[in-house]
Amino acid sequence: MKSFASDNYAGVLPEVMEALTRANEEHAVSYGNDPLTGRVRKLFCEVFDADVDVLFVFNGTGANVLSMTTATQSFQSVLCADTSHFYNDESSAPETFTGCRFFPIAADHNGKLTPEALGKKIIRKGDIHFSQPKIISLTQSTEYGTVYTPEEIRSIAVLARQHELYLHVDGSRFFNAAASLNCSLRELSTTTGVDILSLGGTKLGMMFGEAVVIFNKQLKAYAGFRHKQTMQLASKTRFIAAQYEALLAHEVWRKHAQHANQMAAKLASVLKSYPQVKITKPVQANAVFAEMPAEWISPLQQAFPFYIWNELTNEVRLMCSFDTNEEDLRGFEKAVKAISQATSRTGG
Amino acid sequence: MKSFASDNYAGVLPEVMEALTRANEEHAVSYGNDPLTGRVRKLFCEVFDADVDVLFVFNGTGANVLSMTTATQSFQSVLCADTSHFYNDESSAPETFTGCRFFPIAADHNGKLTPEALGKKIIRKGDIHFSQPKIISLTQSTEYGTVYTPEEIRSIAVLARQHELYLHVDGSRFFNAAASLNCSLRELSTTTGVDILSLGGTKLGMMFGEAVVIFNKQLKAYAGFRHKQTMQLASKTRFIAAQYEALLAHEVWRKHAQHANQMAAKLASVLKSYPQVKITKPVQANAVFAEMPAEWISPLQQAFPFYIWNELTNEVRLMCSFDTNEEDLRGFEKAVKAISQATSRTGG
Amino acid sequence: MKSFASDNYAGVLPEVMEALTRANEEHAVSYGNDPLTGRVRKLFCEVFDADVDVLFVFNGTGANVLSMTTATQSFQSVLCADTSHFYNDESSAPETFTGCRFFPIAADHNGKLTPEALGKKIIRKGDIHFSQPKIISLTQSTEYGTVYTPEEIRSIAVLARQHELYLHVDGSRFFNAAASLNCSLRELSTTTGVDILSLGGTKLGMMFGEAVVIFNKQLKAYAGFRHKQTMQLASKTRFIAAQYEALLAHEVWRKHAQHANQMAAKLASVLKSYPQVKITKPVQANAVFAEMPAEWISPLQQAFPFYIWNELTNEVRLMCSFDTNEEDLRGFEKAVKAISQATSRTGG
Amino acid sequence: MKSFASDNYAGVLPEVMEALTRANEEHAVSYGNDPLTGRVRKLFCEVFDADVDVLFVFNGTGANVLSMTTATQSFQSVLCADTSHFYNDESSAPETFTGCRFFPIAADHNGKLTPEALGKKIIRKGDIHFSQPKIISLTQSTEYGTVYTPEEIRSIAVLARQHELYLHVDGSRFFNAAASLNCSLRELSTTTGVDILSLGGTKLGMMFGEAVVIFNKQLKAYAGFRHKQTMQLASKTRFIAAQYEALLAHEVWRKHAQHANQMAAKLASVLKSYPQVKITKPVQANAVFAEMPAEWISPLQQAFPFYIWNELTNEVRLMCSFDTNEEDLRGFEKAVKAISQATSRTGG
Repeated sequence: MKSFASDNYAGVLPEVMEALTRANEEHAVSYGNDPLTGRVRKLFCEVFDADVDVLFVFNGTGANVLSMTTATQSFQSVLCADTSHFYNDESSAPETFTGCRFFPIAADHNGKLTPEALGKKIIRKGDIHFSQPKIISLTQSTEYGTVYTPEEIRSIAVLARQHELYLHVDGSRFFNAAASLNCSLRELSTTTGVDILSLGGTKLGMMFGEAVVIFNKQLKAYAGFRHKQTMQLASKTRFIAAQYEALLAHEVWRKHAQHANQMAAKLASVLKSYPQVKITKPVQANAVFAEMPAEWISPLQQAFPFYIWNELTNEVRLMCSFDTNEEDLRGFEKAVKAISQATSRTGG
Repeated sequence: MKSFASDNYAGVLPEVMEALTRANEEHAVSYGNDPLTGRVRKLFCEVFDADVDVLFVFNGTGANVLSMTTATQSFQSVLCADTSHFYNDESSAPETFTGCRFFPIAADHNGKLTPEALGKKIIRKGDIHFSQPKIISLTQSTEYGTVYTPEEIRSIAVLARQHELYLHVDGSRFFNAAASLNCSLRELSTTTGVDILSLGGTKLGMMFGEAVVIFNKQLKAYAGFRHKQTMQLASKTRFIAAQYEALLAHEVWRKHAQHANQMAAKLASVLKSYPQVKITKPVQANAVFAEMPAEWISPLQQAFPFYIWNELTNEVRLMCSFDTNEEDLRGFEKAVKAISQATSRTGG
Repeated sequence: MKSFASDNYAGVLPEVMEALTRANEEHAVSYGNDPLTGRVRKLFCEVFDADVDVLFVFNGTGANVLSMTTATQSFQSVLCADTSHFYNDESSAPETFTGCRFFPIAADHNGKLTPEALGKKIIRKGDIHFSQPKIISLTQSTEYGTVYTPEEIRSIAVLARQHELYLHVDGSRFFNAAASLNCSLRELSTTTGVDILSLGGTKLGMMFGEAVVIFNKQLKAYAGFRHKQTMQLASKTRFIAAQYEALLAHEVWRKHAQHANQMAAKLASVLKSYPQVKITKPVQANAVFAEMPAEWISPLQQAFPFYIWNELTNEVRLMCSFDTNEEDLRGFEKAVKAISQATSRTGG
Repeated sequence: MKSFASDNYAGVLPEVMEALTRANEEHAVSYGNDPLTGRVRKLFCEVFDADVDVLFVFNGTGANVLSMTTATQSFQSVLCADTSHFYNDESSAPETFTGCRFFPIAADHNGKLTPEALGKKIIRKGDIHFSQPKIISLTQSTEYGTVYTPEEIRSIAVLARQHELYLHVDGSRFFNAAASLNCSLRELSTTTGVDILSLGGTKLGMMFGEAVVIFNKQLKAYAGFRHKQTMQLASKTRFIAAQYEALLAHEVWRKHAQHANQMAAKLASVLKSYPQVKITKPVQANAVFAEMPAEWISPLQQAFPFYIWNELTNEVRLMCSFDTNEEDLRGFEKAVKAISQATSRTGG
């Protein structure tokens, strides 16, 4: 059964599966010192048009924690959105591993951090009693399926530079953001002042694996040690690298990310036609947030599983993935229609 | 090029590759709550003939650290072999994540821990100034390619029980050990008093993934939280579970582990025929340790990469894997013959 | 020069100094196993009318971190006031040592946590992705010099019990709170459901040292190990215990705490007589919070140092201590009068 | 009752007690920003003839952990003697706080580390799988009451420099070492290449408090933050500084350290006169290690408590302190004589 619960319910893209099969040739040096991984590292440099270091890791939490540990000392702190996955859904892994304080910063209605909100916590520099802010972490696309523009990122990067902070982007859906803005990966990172990026692959159809992309030279020195120490170094790294090659070559990622985004847009327009439903956030990437009548939720979930985001307001989250298709949308539309009619009858 | 450097240079078993392809069906609940993963959990219970909890993780370091964190508090300590991978090759990940002290215990000539050696560090119980021993960690098969018998494990388990310690087995090559002893997985774990096991898959031909198998009820309570917190929970867990299913069903693992072990035995017998070579450790699993003339090493490495284990004694390690074949052995034999003749001529 | 900057600018009470001199007799067993420390432990049990464990530590941060570490596992979280010293002024020591998440909970206008505010974060029980709340930490008296009533503490203790959380009180000014409420130490702890208390001594005139008082049996098991491990175990513990004996015997603490509180009340009434000044928080313990004309602050600080609490609103904090005296108040009153007249002239 | 159990059983020197009383004047800025502390910081610079940073802390474990955390990243390791207090008697505080690996290095018969022994573990530089050695920690005087000469320290400092490691000295009995060598503090630190020193005061008669002295500029940058974060910053720091002033001024420390050392020498010469007793370590500072007949130990301990160091060989440790006096020695001599006669009669 297809679901709108999460884009990580989907399986593996055919291009990725083929790449995995192709990578399965005889012997290769382990821990990322093989030719395939070397080749993909170069591909990253081309794609981002920068001399980046790339650390292939296992999952998003690993990518984020590794990013933090390259950029902080344990007496320092991280500024992240109070709505972020990093702050809400990764246990206390960040603290346990880095020892740092994580300050939740109030995101705006669209789930974005602003220079104003961040600035209120960039305080008490040099005060030994206060865990010193050292890195800002944005989520792109955000938890609410919205997208930071290059200008918005740049304004936060400027703030970070002014105060000697680093800028991290948790890009578990970075491809969806770039597809939404119809821009290159480079325009959302290299040229906007991002220091380090968790570039997610799993949610777009990789089997496993994420990539930490380091732009700032200062963060490269010990990154290899941190990679191993965070338990994120795969012995057969080539099988992560190969998946990225499949996504990055010829911008294969764009086709699939665009598709998922479009499915979300269509899903939103289906829902918009019902006055009982309120789309609560701009639909910019592959998520739709909507408030709907309480009695609709359970029947709809039975047909197409999804999560309730806010129980108080009956706000639900519907995620589209690379394999969401027109038929799924038609099925969902039908289900909405049925429940709408059923409840209007009984409600009337 | 085939190598004897490490069994993690090898690729992926055909059975595993097929299982991955099969698992790639539509949508499945993430984070291990899917039917496939549930089914494989049951298979573990059958195979181990015990009500085990299974945590699918990404790599060996992750499996070991997760195991430690389920069984310790940060004021406690871990007893492990001074020769172990855990102590020598996993950075300070264990300390950073658990906060515990790791005491290196002198392994015997064959790389094994004995109750006598362990007993010398199980001291000062209740002394708040001394990091309290809480878990013993064995490696099966050992770093030297030797294998603990069930009796040896049992005698250490008895020691652990007497002192209220837990017993962990780092089984990154557990399948090779069971194949070597021609016994079941159960006979090396459930019935010998193992509390928690890191069951390795990658070195036997999985693409990625290990399994933490918990036998002791006391260690189960918070294991799920620790799983997430150690950054070892895969969103698409089914793709790890599926690989284990491929290995465990019909004891597929045995065929491949046995093969690797036999290749090692043959390799050893090739080397034994040269008086210049001394096999330094009993060849019980898939590793051969041998001292050879210094001038042989570099030419042989060019033909078949392998590691020098001890530079002082010119001891080398030769690892066989599931895909080492007779042709490889013949090639190696030829290379040895050539270098032996060349050096005897010049040496003479 | 006397100051209103902090009660920790003051020196040592004569009773405490005498106790230190008396304790300096020949040899005593180290690390708290001496007769004097044993005697003071019993005194704590009498004073709190409970079978408490007492850990003598060096400072407030140590007391708080030790308290947390007895009550939490690293995948759990702590709920504390967003205004608390613990959250704002103890670096990232809590995270570095415990590995836990610290969630800031919005305090009310008077700096207090309410069951309602806390309840909003006691969520997602059993969800492995979310750092699980395990302990609530209150500050008594609060950062704003206000005092939780026994009823208020009890209502939070009830909430804690319902959700299997522990209740900690950071009592760096616990004596001031008890003096303010004219109640016993017991009535603010033992009978209100507090599980563990950081009982501060330094701010009331000890030279150094705080005490962690454990009421809940479950938290006692490993507390001794944690005491050593948090680097808070003094070899000559008797010199901390002796200071507590001086304070607890005959409720010596009450006289001094009451005095500091009364000085604060008088200071507030001095300020209240000026319409330009607004007392912003109820004056219940030994702190006065007040907004005053911006141009008053610097001249007043030169006469009597104190801190600006909120630069935007010109709110200042004035702390009284055991040695604040009537002469100090008269001196401050004179300085206020002078600046008030000077500015009214120029302002006029 | 006087004892030979530990020099931390002794109380407080009269000079120190007076200094504490003198320091108890009115108000002073907290957290070490007061004039007295500033003055003592300068005194340290004079005494060590170097631009040192001084961090006043509470105890030896705190001093050592703080030293480590200024000099390491969590993926690095510390080399310390397998016999050291740091490794055996400070719980797992070092690991929990720093996240580093602590490698025990075999000390020689006299409890000293040698460049040879250390060199064996300064390996695998740049290998991300191996926790990278970054700091060497010596103990002066050693656990066996022996003393490193300036030349010995220098040779280890040279090794450290060659490999880009730092050199730390755990000087909980540093004063005894300097008195033993009849040299200045400077000659044992500044001019021998020590980077950071834990200078103990408690064991020589301070009430509490140690000092971390930083010689190497590179270690100063974040030391203040680490000071707070390790829970070792006293609000009333002046009361630690004042004690050091009492010890450092006019080399008061030398008189007391010399005395303790001399008492140990005399104690040893008493014991040497008995053929049943074997002094096992050179008596250079204030400790005597001796093997004696098993049946002597318990009766002697009843008269003068001391610790058994090695139960297998009946080796005991006898510590002298600043207040050990001739009368104590005579009392002990008498007790030895009595037990020797009693056992020779029964034994005969």
